Amino acid sequence: MAKANDNYLKLPGSYLFSMIGKKVREYGEAHPDADIIRLGIGDVTQPLAPAIIDALHKAVDEMGNAATFKGYAPDLGYDFLRNVIAEQDYKARGCDISADEIFVADGAKSDCANIQEIFSVDNKIAVCDPVYPVYVDSNVMAGRAGDYDAATERFTKVIYMPCTEANGFMPEFPKEDPDLIYLCFPNNPTGSAITKSKLQEWVDYANRIGAIILYDAAYEAYISEDDIPHSIFECEGARTCAIEFRSFSKNAGFTGVRLGFTVIPKDLKAGDTALHPLWARRHGTKYNGAPYIIQRAGEAVYSPEGKAQLKEQVAYYMKNARVIYDGLKGAGYDVSGGVNAPYIWLKAPNNMTSWEFFDLLLDKANVVGTPGSGFGPSGEHFFRLTAFGTYENTVRAVDRIKKL
Amino acid sequence: MAKANDNYLKLPGSYLFSMIGKKVREYGEAHPDADIIRLGIGDVTQPLAPAIIDALHKAVDEMGNAATFKGYAPDLGYDFLRNVIAEQDYKARGCDISADEIFVADGAKSDCANIQEIFSVDNKIAVCDPVYPVYVDSNVMAGRAGDYDAATERFTKVIYMPCTEANGFMPEFPKEDPDLIYLCFPNNPTGSAITKSKLQEWVDYANRIGAIILYDAAYEAYISEDDIPHSIFECEGARTCAIEFRSFSKNAGFTGVRLGFTVIPKDLKAGDTALHPLWARRHGTKYNGAPYIIQRAGEAVYSPEGKAQLKEQVAYYMKNARVIYDGLKGAGYDVSGGVNAPYIWLKAPNNMTSWEFFDLLLDKANVVGTPGSGFGPSGEHFFRLTAFGTYENTVRAVDRIKKL
Repeated sequence: MAKANDNYLKLPGSYLFSMIGKKVREYGEAHPDADIIRLGIGDVTQPLAPAIIDALHKAVDEMGNAATFKGYAPDLGYDFLRNVIAEQDYKARGCDISADEIFVADGAKSDCANIQEIFSVDNKIAVCDPVYPVYVDSNVMAGRAGDYDAATERFTKVIYMPCTEANGFMPEFPKEDPDLIYLCFPNNPTGSAITKSKLQEWVDYANRIGAIILYDAAYEAYISEDDIPHSIFECEGARTCAIEFRSFSKNAGFTGVRLGFTVIPKDLKAGDTALHPLWARRHGTKYNGAPYIIQRAGEAVYSPEGKAQLKEQVAYYMKNARVIYDGLKGAGYDVSGGVNAPYIWLKAPNNMTSWEFFDLLLDKANVVGTPGSGFGPSGEHFFRLTAFGTYENTVRAVDRIKKL
Repeated sequence: MAKANDNYLKLPGSYLFSMIGKKVREYGEAHPDADIIRLGIGDVTQPLAPAIIDALHKAVDEMGNAATFKGYAPDLGYDFLRNVIAEQDYKARGCDISADEIFVADGAKSDCANIQEIFSVDNKIAVCDPVYPVYVDSNVMAGRAGDYDAATERFTKVIYMPCTEANGFMPEFPKEDPDLIYLCFPNNPTGSAITKSKLQEWVDYANRIGAIILYDAAYEAYISEDDIPHSIFECEGARTCAIEFRSFSKNAGFTGVRLGFTVIPKDLKAGDTALHPLWARRHGTKYNGAPYIIQRAGEAVYSPEGKAQLKEQVAYYMKNARVIYDGLKGAGYDVSGGVNAPYIWLKAPNNMTSWEFFDLLLDKANVVGTPGSGFGPSGEHFFRLTAFGTYENTVRAVDRIKKL
């Protein structure tokens, strides 16, 4: 008799963004004239840059011609893409990462969710609180998180590292030693960034206790300050304790295109077991490579034209971040983030809960944000707004919030 | 201290197709002038059909325009694609499957590998022997397969259903009741097809013992005979015992494009747990939807032009199948498959092992095939050739084999 994976049943409610989608859909149906502005899910709004569109058309034409048609991609990615990533994202920043340590896939979300598979179910994970839900939920599904305790809103076997106003939204070393440490900088959802010296402390800590840092750098393109590292591999010793996830979603608008990559140094071991061959085996068995045309689009991100165009695109969104940050601060809100990240983290006024503020904003300002409590109990009373809207909508949304 | 998932270490050697790739690469390096013809991995060679190329270009243009740009896709797929699949692949064949029971993803390989996640680790799987390695390996990684016994070349906790000359390469009900039954028809690797009445027996059996059939129908486009079902949902009662996987790789040449879908009826339960919401939750947590432009390409597969063009493409490959089948049969080989499937299954001559025949073919004919033993011990002494080469290469490969 087939039995379901009961761990799935431990997941409370539905996935945060599905829940928001449902609330907004229902509101829209009840108020068909409402002019809803979405600054919630972190989806981008600017079209793909011309250099990327050109690369896509070219690759599509290749696929229509027998002489240039491409079938199965290499499991781990085409060399043309892995090489340019190694050169421009790593070697150019002084990071010792080679092309064959880069695994191309369909996005950081999948990779962040799947990476836990190559580790023992006994391993204990540490996560920031608030946190991107995928890290926790993927471990719950695997049976690594224990049971959900509704009173604390936490899983019994997960180590939570609160990121609060008091610590400037920066995690502190946990009391109990974790085996796997999820870190995301620039941070989703708080928009906080970690300095190189602070990240070095985490690398040293992980090497000391034999833990592995699962480092989500999906938002590195939004870093504007000099002392903020773009990669964990800028830190000394990271090759023996870190895996890094990168995305094309936010630096190049690929949320609907799907491309990302994961870096696993060949030196990296869990106990005596090298992890690079395990992840390679996973790719070979459970994945068939990212589409050729989309890997060509990824390559165009690194071309001179692509880089110039995307610099403008990132600047466009960061102007939005500034509008939100300055506007809400001027209106008396407590705000942080938004300087090295496309997310602004604000405190709900009048001690409202995150969902109360969500409902208020949706109802009175027709603006959709993300309730901080959806990212974990320490996110309660906070709220995330994204800079990924259009400039016009961002200005209108901030005006509406100011008038509340 | 981080610990690796030791189940990965139970996997013997590398993934079959990686091993073949390595052998061919090494042979090519040692014999740079060799004119190698690849009829091994099952990769297609014909370019994408014009209707698909047009759809891709159109969708790329949409992505370059702010008014039509698409960000995150719906987790489970765009309605335009799910609807046309439900209509043409299911309702048109009298199968009671609705659009919201169709989960669009990046290919049948990923889905076949990932599906086991929503089941208990205690569940016992049954597979055909020989078998597509992904079914077994993904269960090994999850710890569901037990240990590898080198003597029998089998995993201790897996139920194997031998498909041999004696039973016409058709699995028989196993002695021990399985919880999950992987079936692939038309079959990879043997090219055998199952009749509707025979498949109905499997459906009845699964319903009787409470097992779930994981039905891989990736090759249904190659069915040429009337009594062969294209979907397991043509059988009565399949809604309560079956999940079906479909691919665009072989009917539309999408091996390098990546698109497929999985059908989970809402009625389907494991014990008391409905599986549709579990798979939906998995998609929502670990996946971000197939790329918009590629879902539009998938839609074009169902357009009148697309269908006409792809009918020709399938006929092209089936002509190859006929060339291989007739050619090798005429030369005295024992051959099967190739009538409702793009695979020809032949017996290695002179009691050679599969890998001996692989080496002989590579060395003396410069033809790459797939050793049957790579699919399981009952595949020993057999060999798979695919019809996915070009017509010219297929004719040349068969001529060379005949001359051995």
